[in-house]
Amino acid sequence: EISIGDYVVFGGEVASLVLIETIARLIPGVVGKKDSVEKESFSAGLLKYPCYTRPRDFMGYKVPDILLSGNHAEIEKYRRKQSLEITLRRKPYLFKEIELSEEDKKIIAELLKIQRFYIFLVHYPVFNKNGEKIASAIANFDLHDLSRLARTYGLKGVYIIQPLEDQRKLAEELIDYWLTKKGAQYNPLRKEAIKLVKIFETLDSAILEVESIEGERPILLGTDASPKRKYVKCEEIRNLLWEKPLALVLGTAWGLCDEVLDRCDYFLEPIWGRLDTYNHLSVRSAASIFIDRILGIYSYYKKY
Amino acid sequence: EISIGDYVVFGGEVASLVLIETIARLIPGVVGKKDSVEKESFSAGLLKYPCYTRPRDFMGYKVPDILLSGNHAEIEKYRRKQSLEITLRRKPYLFKEIELSEEDKKIIAELLKIQRFYIFLVHYPVFNKNGEKIASAIANFDLHDLSRLARTYGLKGVYIIQPLEDQRKLAEELIDYWLTKKGAQYNPLRKEAIKLVKIFETLDSAILEVESIEGERPILLGTDASPKRKYVKCEEIRNLLWEKPLALVLGTAWGLCDEVLDRCDYFLEPIWGRLDTYNHLSVRSAASIFIDRILGIYSYYKKY
Repeated sequence: EISIGDYVVFGGEVASLVLIETIARLIPGVVGKKDSVEKESFSAGLLKYPCYTRPRDFMGYKVPDILLSGNHAEIEKYRRKQSLEITLRRKPYLFKEIELSEEDKKIIAELLKIQRFYIFLVHYPVFNKNGEKIASAIANFDLHDLSRLARTYGLKGVYIIQPLEDQRKLAEELIDYWLTKKGAQYNPLRKEAIKLVKIFETLDSAILEVESIEGERPILLGTDASPKRKYVKCEEIRNLLWEKPLALVLGTAWGLCDEVLDRCDYFLEPIWGRLDTYNHLSVRSAASIFIDRILGIYSYYKKY
Repeated sequence: EISIGDYVVFGGEVASLVLIETIARLIPGVVGKKDSVEKESFSAGLLKYPCYTRPRDFMGYKVPDILLSGNHAEIEKYRRKQSLEITLRRKPYLFKEIELSEEDKKIIAELLKIQRFYIFLVHYPVFNKNGEKIASAIANFDLHDLSRLARTYGLKGVYIIQPLEDQRKLAEELIDYWLTKKGAQYNPLRKEAIKLVKIFETLDSAILEVESIEGERPILLGTDASPKRKYVKCEEIRNLLWEKPLALVLGTAWGLCDEVLDRCDYFLEPIWGRLDTYNHLSVRSAASIFIDRILGIYSYYKKY
């Protein structure tokens, strides 16, 4: 059974035409030059670079200079980069299917740096089991798991929001151990992850820090396993990734209080249960799944 | 920009036909009865139930009795169930877009029970940092995070493999605390999750337990962040879900030794880095992401 797409047509006629055209064009001679088949979208696994025609200047839209340069090697390189960028922005899942050269990987990693993503882990104000507003304690495992997640997915920071001074001091000591003390020698890979963790007294100071790095305030993505607000799908957030710095705002204990959620710009669709409504994940699991749902489509930097 | 699918056609002609047909049929009068539009695939968000024609028996393929019964309410119910099942098996992602009735949800949850999924968390034999074979200690957080994950995604068990007797005893005490002691009253939701955890001395005894429950041996899905074997994508595992019990085999410490991997039937594509090759996730993060990549498409049991 073959599906040409998720829509309904009158009958089998148009679907047959789609199959005939897509298959016929692979037969040598059906399309003029073999070259033009090989450079089409999907043949190389990528979308095709933009094609230009005369005039050189159409109402202000100009053909890029490099394409007029006559330097074929440079033109090829330019087109490859255009293909990579268009694919990355429109159909990034295509990259999962293809082998990329080291050169391609570098171009893509450079483009992906336009996306700036942070995790904010909030310890106050959050709910306890009885729905009371509390400040929760920092869990050692949160710092490790979230920083390793952040390092793997190329996030720019894991910001811990904790108003209690002794708790902040404890966390700073822990970070220091892995960055400069015994931990740094024992496990350099952990050091690379823990480097991304910073401790803040308030949500505002964490926001200000992002603003000072990125030159603009981050869009705050609220999370709530029992949502009372309109939410968006993780996929829908991906367009924003190319525009603005984003921060995933996670609550510890029994979740974020309204005064934090009120400040968020969007709310992510919760991670739902499969057989019933139970969806009580640890913040470590929830963070991992949210990050993968948003950014996993860009994560194919294979080791080999 | 509209894409009719990930393939290349000769030009805009067939793509235009697809658009014309899909849009025109929504105009009242273009298709005979409004009814036949509303019952098509995707109109209700679901794929269409199978349609039958005469003869009643074609080379042994029979029209189901219920469709010949004349009981229209029962026929509607039967067709709804067929629609749900076909959609669930072929395009489960469509469910994310639609509102399901309580009746629908129950039918789907029943169908999803055909899928039987386990987590095996292996503490021996695993590697330490220096590539030596060791038995690792049980981490309290693993039991909590993995069982909450398992309960949310409707898994059938989290099996802990630990050869050290004192470690097993410790884990049993912890489980007991949440199932029958103070923990059970303090947090009944945690109890529901922890119920799924069982402790085993060896991988073989865990496999035997699944076999005794399911009547057949589970397919073992190996994981390795630096794979030396041919791997499959998480999506590709979904077909197996309808056929066999599956167990996701995760290693603690620095990962599973070859003697465990050698016994696995398939290897999951690792969770790759986004900007470079770094992919050192905690086992809690990796488990969450693998489970979501395989089963998240079936997890839309909304609370409201």
